[in-house]
Amino acid sequence: MNYRFSKSIENLKPSAIREILKAPSDADTISFAAGNPAPESFPVADMERISAQIYKEDAALALQYGITEGYAPLRADITARNLRLFGIGGSRGNVPDTTLVVSGGTQGIELACRVLCNPGDAVLCEDPTFIGALNAFRAAGAVPIGVPLRKDGIDIDALEKTLAENTNIRMLYVIPTFQNPTGITWNLSVRRQVYELACRFGVIILEDNPYGELRFAGEDLPTLKSMDDQGIVIYCSSFSKILSAGMRIGYVIAPEPICAKMTVQKQVEDVHTNLFFQMLCHRYLQECDIDAHICDIRKLYRHKCMLMLEALDTFMPPEVTYTRPEGGLFIWCTLPEGTDIDAFLHACDAAKVRIVPGVAFNCDTSAPSRSFRLNYSTPSDMQITEGIRRLAAASRAVLH
Amino acid sequence: MNYRFSKSIENLKPSAIREILKAPSDADTISFAAGNPAPESFPVADMERISAQIYKEDAALALQYGITEGYAPLRADITARNLRLFGIGGSRGNVPDTTLVVSGGTQGIELACRVLCNPGDAVLCEDPTFIGALNAFRAAGAVPIGVPLRKDGIDIDALEKTLAENTNIRMLYVIPTFQNPTGITWNLSVRRQVYELACRFGVIILEDNPYGELRFAGEDLPTLKSMDDQGIVIYCSSFSKILSAGMRIGYVIAPEPICAKMTVQKQVEDVHTNLFFQMLCHRYLQECDIDAHICDIRKLYRHKCMLMLEALDTFMPPEVTYTRPEGGLFIWCTLPEGTDIDAFLHACDAAKVRIVPGVAFNCDTSAPSRSFRLNYSTPSDMQITEGIRRLAAASRAVLH
Repeated sequence: MNYRFSKSIENLKPSAIREILKAPSDADTISFAAGNPAPESFPVADMERISAQIYKEDAALALQYGITEGYAPLRADITARNLRLFGIGGSRGNVPDTTLVVSGGTQGIELACRVLCNPGDAVLCEDPTFIGALNAFRAAGAVPIGVPLRKDGIDIDALEKTLAENTNIRMLYVIPTFQNPTGITWNLSVRRQVYELACRFGVIILEDNPYGELRFAGEDLPTLKSMDDQGIVIYCSSFSKILSAGMRIGYVIAPEPICAKMTVQKQVEDVHTNLFFQMLCHRYLQECDIDAHICDIRKLYRHKCMLMLEALDTFMPPEVTYTRPEGGLFIWCTLPEGTDIDAFLHACDAAKVRIVPGVAFNCDTSAPSRSFRLNYSTPSDMQITEGIRRLAAASRAVLH
Repeated sequence: MNYRFSKSIENLKPSAIREILKAPSDADTISFAAGNPAPESFPVADMERISAQIYKEDAALALQYGITEGYAPLRADITARNLRLFGIGGSRGNVPDTTLVVSGGTQGIELACRVLCNPGDAVLCEDPTFIGALNAFRAAGAVPIGVPLRKDGIDIDALEKTLAENTNIRMLYVIPTFQNPTGITWNLSVRRQVYELACRFGVIILEDNPYGELRFAGEDLPTLKSMDDQGIVIYCSSFSKILSAGMRIGYVIAPEPICAKMTVQKQVEDVHTNLFFQMLCHRYLQECDIDAHICDIRKLYRHKCMLMLEALDTFMPPEVTYTRPEGGLFIWCTLPEGTDIDAFLHACDAAKVRIVPGVAFNCDTSAPSRSFRLNYSTPSDMQITEGIRRLAAASRAVLH
């Protein structure tokens, strides 16, 4: 049987990362390839207690169909928390925002693209960027166009030039805080300039902030959404990195007309998000001290990130550069020009250490990359030190 | 702010049913509009016990990211159960099938359309059919074309004619057992002829079977998938009507190349389905007697359906006709030709009884309908009798 598939799916590849994660590995392999939160970061005891409560008090509601917009008390919690933490909402502009519960942050990104982009429309992205978003754009027939990322944020001049030169740009997708894959955080000036440029060119900003609460150094910076008095920012985040990734609960805060369209699209995708866990999140936010819980996660990730940076400083040849993130899950390493990347990846395999090659995060999948992504939230302390030692050896083997 | 949306979403309306369900109602209103399972059908005590076990024994796995294909032990359970119950799989053809866990049956339908249909392609459907599927097709830019439904199944002559006259048909979407909205079940001859026609015209069948286990009268008939030695049937079902709708766990059994593409599309939509509840379903299927549980649900629905039919037989004017389902959740009523439907709907509102007007299920939304859908799984016994009495009065008021 020779199946004929739709154009949109024909050329879409499964996420390289998720394929790497599925590859068999032996006990001695050390993986820095995941994007998973640390399992210690799940508040298991509280979730267990709250689950038992829901079965006792509210089972018929929790196990029944719900409305697509999400469980109303959770939506109210999310709205209030984001106003308090990030200055989001509070009807600062003339377009009121609303909150939609989605099945993980990725769904928010996918819905935004579906409701805004026709096939052939362009979506500007930081280059490199989150592979799940790139694939969501490609699946919708939208064309990702990369704008270089500098150490202080997206390249403003390149962004302005790209906006001026392309008339079919519908959306600008960005992760301004602890970016995936680079760990870079935009400074305030870049944030302000990007918001102004988007207003000037009439482009919707899709601000993805899954790691925003995981700051362990430096000071909070305003989200683009907090500047949004024109109603042009769709804000996406989730509970994946602070409560549980496997439960698939994310949210979107966006101008009401955009959220209304995203709701209709969500209805055809999955009707609504798992209601039991929406109720669990609501009760958790009401009954537990989520700020204290996040404080513990920050301490854990600060420790792991510092340990990885220390190992990189100690073992890596000086020609290899890397970012020094103030939060999030990732460090981005770059090998010097002229490095044989295939030989490096081969050496990593042989040394039993897994990383994600930078090419996976490129807007243009045919563009080469001398970089790779390291995750520090999942490996143990010993694995971090030993894994970086192996990586350094693999680097030295191809450099000299 | 004047937002510009994609063509695919611009004209898509939220499901009429879900909007009806959101409308405010007072305690005296009786609703036959839902498609919800009876809350008594949720095995709350077992689910509560299993949830506690998962937190104790497997929390780190249940709360972490999983793979897009679904939790492997649950996939194996689903495969085995469907082979035993419905003769599905077991590598009868030359194209091996595989099982994909999805976030409710609707996601399976949506994924199938996304991977098979380009915008402008046609999807043949029973007319009337499930509104969620119609909207999923429309959202993907596919065009639903209706084929009339007779009391023994889809109209074979009309189907053959439509297949012969249209070259852009990619898929045939059908619910052969206890159809939504009509409650009709196709006979064996119709099933065989439809499978043969699909083979002859090279069209993929999407067989939706969410109610298949809810038979309370008559005898089981083979699924189209059980006849599939050519690898042309995508089979969709879910646990929504037998364990819990709110948890959003469904599945697809389809030829491996099709499932592989659906997996890639699912990855961009929600990465994976809630893992905790996937594990819960697996443990439920292993530890509990699901067949005995379903037997209880069948008894409950037999009782409620018989009660509703008895009330219809007693109160309805003879000009109003209705189906006599052997399972599922719905009865389909049809008013005589010439009835003023708007006046009837108005009378229903005034009498505080809610139904879903047939027009919501039409492939062609501008086509009129003299029919309406009744649900018997959610109202109480007293509501069924009293609600049908009100409906009968509303019918008489517009008939005479």
